[in-house]
Amino acid sequence: MKFHLITLFEDACDAYLSASIVGRARKGKKIRVTYRSPRDFVDNKWGKVDERPYGGGPGMVMSAMPVVRAVQRALLIPPKPRRRGNNEKPHFAKASRSKSHRPVVIWFSPSGKQFTNKDAEMLAKYSDVVLICGRYEGIDERAKKILKTLAPLKEFAVGEAVYTGGEVPALAVVDAVTRRLPGVLGKDASVEERRIASSAVYTRPETIIFKKKKYCVPKVLKTGHHAKIDSWREKK
Amino acid sequence: MKFHLITLFEDACDAYLSASIVGRARKGKKIRVTYRSPRDFVDNKWGKVDERPYGGGPGMVMSAMPVVRAVQRALLIPPKPRRRGNNEKPHFAKASRSKSHRPVVIWFSPSGKQFTNKDAEMLAKYSDVVLICGRYEGIDERAKKILKTLAPLKEFAVGEAVYTGGEVPALAVVDAVTRRLPGVLGKDASVEERRIASSAVYTRPETIIFKKKKYCVPKVLKTGHHAKIDSWREKK
Repeated sequence: MKFHLITLFEDACDAYLSASIVGRARKGKKIRVTYRSPRDFVDNKWGKVDERPYGGGPGMVMSAMPVVRAVQRALLIPPKPRRRGNNEKPHFAKASRSKSHRPVVIWFSPSGKQFTNKDAEMLAKYSDVVLICGRYEGIDERAKKILKTLAPLKEFAVGEAVYTGGEVPALAVVDAVTRRLPGVLGKDASVEERRIASSAVYTRPETIIFKKKKYCVPKVLKTGHHAKIDSWREKK
Repeated sequence: MKFHLITLFEDACDAYLSASIVGRARKGKKIRVTYRSPRDFVDNKWGKVDERPYGGGPGMVMSAMPVVRAVQRALLIPPKPRRRGNNEKPHFAKASRSKSHRPVVIWFSPSGKQFTNKDAEMLAKYSDVVLICGRYEGIDERAKKILKTLAPLKEFAVGEAVYTGGEVPALAVVDAVTRRLPGVLGKDASVEERRIASSAVYTRPETIIFKKKKYCVPKVLKTGHHAKIDSWREKK
């Protein structure tokens, strides 16, 4: 499974995606992460990726085509149909893609559907998940329209606040999908079990004394009576 | 305004919080970010921060006290009342804190209240925002109880999926709060205006041709008629 981040801030993302469980999943080849910067696909010589918005308003808007071209490169779709001789067929894209190539493009917007565990499960069925991280006031809306012609596109929000860019939502998606992949969190405990276990958890020591007050582990957890423990956890 | 991240993964967070708008806000002293690792506050010699959960279940649970001590250090609260001579009064904490010291502790949990722009605005009123990033199966619930005795505690969720830790939610909160601080996004455009502008945005070029199909900027945006443009944007 491959994640392709379309971002101007590779380093900011890669540090997170190299640490802990996600980092281990990369080292163990459970997932791969690649980065493409729209800045490498501009057609001006200054590397300028944004322009002022049509219709006025504050801030800058990311141009559509550098984003589209970055996605094309990530998915190995030829960026431009080049002129060929009569007998020459285009073969760049399809030859280099395997049969199981199943891409999906994720577009983040505060008005998108909230990304859930169910969506994370659904994304795990794709071979290539392309995450578009906008910056500034957003990306020219036509990028979305054009990307829909290249691969299925899903629009998500992660949480209800507005962020400076799509990087935090993208990290959230890679993280949530990766932890559900087989073998990532360990064999013997299913992801679903973990979710239930995570309501209110306690560990050693049995009694904590803080400013002369005692904080104890709930008695039921020490009984060893699994049915009682489960029903206590469900109530939590 | 200070953000204190209580995390085992400082590097993973700091790369994101050093980039782009948040990074500039740090350089411009609009915000400060500090890190404390629970690992530095364990009382075993192996740096072990987690233990098996009471009542059974998969995975490991972070111990309460290393987290509590890390927060105490972040907020300059003395970690332990030490024995003193009769005339010696405790002075470590209060002397070193300014009058405007107003701390708040954020605890992340999938069942917490969804974090919104309104919460981001509310947090901007505190001087010190402590973000607790749990890992593994969560943190011993008693940490929450004890932290409540030290500062007001708010429980949030960022999005509806489950992540490997509290780091992504913490980055989301720092980002969402910082972009709303005066001077961070630029003087002339208010954060609220920006939100409205962000529905569907367009920029140069006026016409994009992709695979022989034309993609144009909506005509209304080129009229210069602000009332019409506003009402078009509201409908979007």
